[in-house]
Amino acid sequence: MPEGRQGEHLVIFQPSGRRGYIAEGKTIKEASRDLGVDIEGICGEKAVCGKCRVRIEEGFFEKYGIESMREHLTPISETERKFFNLQQERSGYRLACQAGIQGDILVFVPEESRMGKQFVRKAATDRAIELKPAVRKCYVELRKATLDDTLGDWERLQTELDRQFGFSNLTIDYQVLLTLQNVVRQGDWKVTVSVWMGKEVIKVESGFVDKAYGLAVDVGTTTVAGYLCDLTNGEVVATDSAMNPQVIYGEDVMSRITYAVHNEDGLEHMNYAIIKELNQIAGRVSAQAGIKRWDIVDMTVVGNTCMHHIFLNLDPQHIGRAPFPPGIHHSLDIKARDLGLKISSGAYIHILPIEAGFVGADNVAVLIAEEPYNQDSMELVIDIGTNGELVLGNRKKLISSSCATGPAFEGAEIKHGMRAAPGAIEKIEIDKDTKEVRFKIIGNEDWNTDLEAVGAKGICGSGIIDVIPQLFMADIIDHRGRFNKDLKTPRLRFAEDGPEFVIARADETSIGQDIVVCQADVRAVQLAKGAMYAGAKLMMRRLGVEKLDKVILAGTFGSYINKESAMIMGLFPDCAPENVYAVGNAAGDGARIALLNADKRREADEIARQVEYVELTLEPDFDKTFTQAMWFPHMKDTFPHLKDFLPEKVVR
Amino acid sequence: MPEGRQGEHLVIFQPSGRRGYIAEGKTIKEASRDLGVDIEGICGEKAVCGKCRVRIEEGFFEKYGIESMREHLTPISETERKFFNLQQERSGYRLACQAGIQGDILVFVPEESRMGKQFVRKAATDRAIELKPAVRKCYVELRKATLDDTLGDWERLQTELDRQFGFSNLTIDYQVLLTLQNVVRQGDWKVTVSVWMGKEVIKVESGFVDKAYGLAVDVGTTTVAGYLCDLTNGEVVATDSAMNPQVIYGEDVMSRITYAVHNEDGLEHMNYAIIKELNQIAGRVSAQAGIKRWDIVDMTVVGNTCMHHIFLNLDPQHIGRAPFPPGIHHSLDIKARDLGLKISSGAYIHILPIEAGFVGADNVAVLIAEEPYNQDSMELVIDIGTNGELVLGNRKKLISSSCATGPAFEGAEIKHGMRAAPGAIEKIEIDKDTKEVRFKIIGNEDWNTDLEAVGAKGICGSGIIDVIPQLFMADIIDHRGRFNKDLKTPRLRFAEDGPEFVIARADETSIGQDIVVCQADVRAVQLAKGAMYAGAKLMMRRLGVEKLDKVILAGTFGSYINKESAMIMGLFPDCAPENVYAVGNAAGDGARIALLNADKRREADEIARQVEYVELTLEPDFDKTFTQAMWFPHMKDTFPHLKDFLPEKVVR
Repeated sequence: MPEGRQGEHLVIFQPSGRRGYIAEGKTIKEASRDLGVDIEGICGEKAVCGKCRVRIEEGFFEKYGIESMREHLTPISETERKFFNLQQERSGYRLACQAGIQGDILVFVPEESRMGKQFVRKAATDRAIELKPAVRKCYVELRKATLDDTLGDWERLQTELDRQFGFSNLTIDYQVLLTLQNVVRQGDWKVTVSVWMGKEVIKVESGFVDKAYGLAVDVGTTTVAGYLCDLTNGEVVATDSAMNPQVIYGEDVMSRITYAVHNEDGLEHMNYAIIKELNQIAGRVSAQAGIKRWDIVDMTVVGNTCMHHIFLNLDPQHIGRAPFPPGIHHSLDIKARDLGLKISSGAYIHILPIEAGFVGADNVAVLIAEEPYNQDSMELVIDIGTNGELVLGNRKKLISSSCATGPAFEGAEIKHGMRAAPGAIEKIEIDKDTKEVRFKIIGNEDWNTDLEAVGAKGICGSGIIDVIPQLFMADIIDHRGRFNKDLKTPRLRFAEDGPEFVIARADETSIGQDIVVCQADVRAVQLAKGAMYAGAKLMMRRLGVEKLDKVILAGTFGSYINKESAMIMGLFPDCAPENVYAVGNAAGDGARIALLNADKRREADEIARQVEYVELTLEPDFDKTFTQAMWFPHMKDTFPHLKDFLPEKVVR
Repeated sequence: MPEGRQGEHLVIFQPSGRRGYIAEGKTIKEASRDLGVDIEGICGEKAVCGKCRVRIEEGFFEKYGIESMREHLTPISETERKFFNLQQERSGYRLACQAGIQGDILVFVPEESRMGKQFVRKAATDRAIELKPAVRKCYVELRKATLDDTLGDWERLQTELDRQFGFSNLTIDYQVLLTLQNVVRQGDWKVTVSVWMGKEVIKVESGFVDKAYGLAVDVGTTTVAGYLCDLTNGEVVATDSAMNPQVIYGEDVMSRITYAVHNEDGLEHMNYAIIKELNQIAGRVSAQAGIKRWDIVDMTVVGNTCMHHIFLNLDPQHIGRAPFPPGIHHSLDIKARDLGLKISSGAYIHILPIEAGFVGADNVAVLIAEEPYNQDSMELVIDIGTNGELVLGNRKKLISSSCATGPAFEGAEIKHGMRAAPGAIEKIEIDKDTKEVRFKIIGNEDWNTDLEAVGAKGICGSGIIDVIPQLFMADIIDHRGRFNKDLKTPRLRFAEDGPEFVIARADETSIGQDIVVCQADVRAVQLAKGAMYAGAKLMMRRLGVEKLDKVILAGTFGSYINKESAMIMGLFPDCAPENVYAVGNAAGDGARIALLNADKRREADEIARQVEYVELTLEPDFDKTFTQAMWFPHMKDTFPHLKDFLPEKVVR
């Protein structure tokens, strides 16, 4: 490798062995990005999440001792010090996002700090959608130009499209116009035209072409999913998904907004990342289906308000600060080429409308998929993702709100939380009598009885939602979330920062230490579920609703929740279990519906305007409602439908 | 300078001294482009015009003799040889466009083969135009977003624009949307919005901005002119013009079409050249007016069918071949950024519609400027440029046609013809008795009595139109264009290729040889004027018209014609001299009118559809009509209004 220039230092990452010269003053995290080393990070490098712990090693820098190596970094601050005990600090632990490089260093990245490839389970559900796509293919045979008939090519085509298909006042995309003359002649005056919304010719192909393809995309904070559809029969011909590459800039929306605000070109980086990923998805689904990416003539996109803004390259800073107004609510139709998306050059991208604040286009997509506005029953739609969104109502009225659930349900800010990646504990069972634990990790078929297969790295979101009701049911924690200190089990122990319960012993993990749930973790989940519950309750009061007829859990995450567990810990007010539905990725379904049925786009715009947004923090009694909702399942509310699960004293 | 690579040869141009290594097989013309040497050329490098003569010199290549130097070029062909007499051939003359490089060479470019900077006299005329621009500025004060009112920025603006200005269903340009949030806040919620055609917001500026600017552009085959207008009062605040940089690819439209057909990327080169020039014009007029180019929020463009197609990057090959259908007739509105034009990012460029064949958007512009469709009188509009276009009619009906006048009127394919550049003879007077000549050249105030100022290089188009009637009036040529061989004057002499008349003696020129009008030149003018006359006559027959009430000579060129001269040589049928008008650059006026009055754009589209195109060559008696029209002023027609100028026997 070449020598570094003045003001640069050699940085080596282990165990990957990646190395390079990095400019003085950059953080270890920045160096890791430069050198292609993936280090976890959720908070947008704000020293909040503590996920990016690394250890500075002596390694082969024989000329330096560990003490002098430390002088090769900026000094540790009080904020940073909080993440380490004295022993760790002495061992050379630092937060990669905080430690600035001032000399040559060797950095060890512990496994818990490494990013695993996201494990993705999103898939299109079979859902009946009326086929009425925005793009229609029309085959026309033209009369050749002669000296008696020198009409221009476009007017010739326009006249024929009007005569045969009734399209009047059609325009033609400028880029397509440039191809028209030669395509017409290559096809011996027989062409297939793609007409968008009955308004504009967006593609012209020689001869007869019967197939037309569209791509529906759900841009989640964590996962991006694409569904390639045949617009002529509505079938999903290929699906693909990937981690949202913006994750490296921050795990939740607030972290990304912060990243955009504090980094010049931060927005551009994140926009570029998602556009690039979508292009890769378009390429992969095209390859799967045996078509060219240019055959894709339509695309719909949904995402929460932050994903929506970043996808559009719209500054997200104002949606991150009170009063949180978005740049735009309306749906938008933008040329693929203007967004840098490599599908058919003249194609439009339809971005669904957003409602308000954090209630985004993904929620609108859920609504057009579930259509609560067409129901008589009182429905609560809960979209649990990195953010929580709630919609309540029926055909008479719909209101929405968003909850600051925090990232607990995604496994973030939890002591041993992690994303739903291989090695994550996703299901947990605690024996009520022995307090012994069984668990299952992603990537393994079996539960933890098969010791060889065990290699837990942490607990993912569904595991968190699973473990808390289990702890509650087993009397390890009480109504108020406090650990029962009188319990006699070696799994309950008392650390510096309070009691904690061991889920996986060090020998069952691949990180060489026990995986535990601590008091702070229980509190984080209480805050998250309390926010959801309080939100639902305040919305019910607002609408004068006494009880819920139906609860819809949307989001891939919703599919993994054991609905009884969710009810037991009090994620939402009482409802008959048989009327609680996990509908999977309803946002993705909504994107696909809008792709295949243009009327649904108009419907989405209308609904987005009609849904009334409720700013929960401005509601009277917000604090009191919230505090009561933090109890398991609730401080005061009764749960008649939980009688089968919990003793009367708990349910009341 | 660096050594050349294998397969490259040193090429040096004199007198400029430019030099470089050029790949074997390239022509000298190609080498000249690579090295930034401007060599004349009209025919698109087809060995037709003979304007690119160069001389191969021994120079300092002492190791080569002139004979061996010749081996450094591909052999001269019979086609090329026609342009040189034996002596010239022996001196090392070649056509730059034909001679391929096979070794080191030193090339001398004679002055007559060098391109002079085009002398431009286009300027906006004062013309009353009703002010109704397509872009309107609206100042609005918005209510700030609050927690009670979290409406999105765009919807907030949209609502206010609807309420205050009655704009419903407005959309916003995507690029402008990206700026909206910050512009709104920078202006403390007070903004000035540019609304295009009542449909779309194309610009948003902080605070109050009262001025709005637009640019009208006339893209001529030879000259490009731009008029920067204040859209709030219609005033022309700056004008600029330049040579159409495509001239280096061919002087007339057919040469350019040929260039596009025979050169890969030929179209792209020409498109790039005109876009770059328009950006320079936009920059210069902005500087003149003390504004930023981004302040230009609207632009209109006119040009003949070929200029129209190349400007749009539309393949022009089909308009160059029977049956000549254009790619599109309709007007187009295309985003400036999609065309690479650097004015306000969201601005639209409005390209006026074209009629048919070579009757282009420039002719439509002439029509909306002169409005023959609103007149009772029978009007003939003649647009004399590199191509001739004719429109005949009145409010009842309008027909149009185009004439293959050839480039004679532009000074091309004339033995000593040249463009209207410094050194060109533009006015000529011949004494009827002595046959002595006075002339005036562009760049000199005085006629050729001031010997020091004389330095003629050739004859430009208006000079050609001037000299033929003078030769006819002085009995030097007869009705049929034949030289009077019995004439006793040293100016009439007999060269290898027939009789010729000396206009400027070698000592009055800067090219070291006599400037003459030869028999072939007279024939070229006869063909050109005969085509115009025959076109007008066939159109009159088609409409059943006996006589013309009015003749309008449009085009900058039209302004320089002595209208009596034009009548005497029979450029058009008889008409009262007081009803013959030279209206200057009416196409540029039309572009400006369309810029300042959006209704005129609709009018242009309607007129372009209504004008009936007549393919003259398909008319009965075309050949006979044409042959008769080649006589001065005509073989058979009478010219009652010419009685004052010519003896009865001539006028009949």
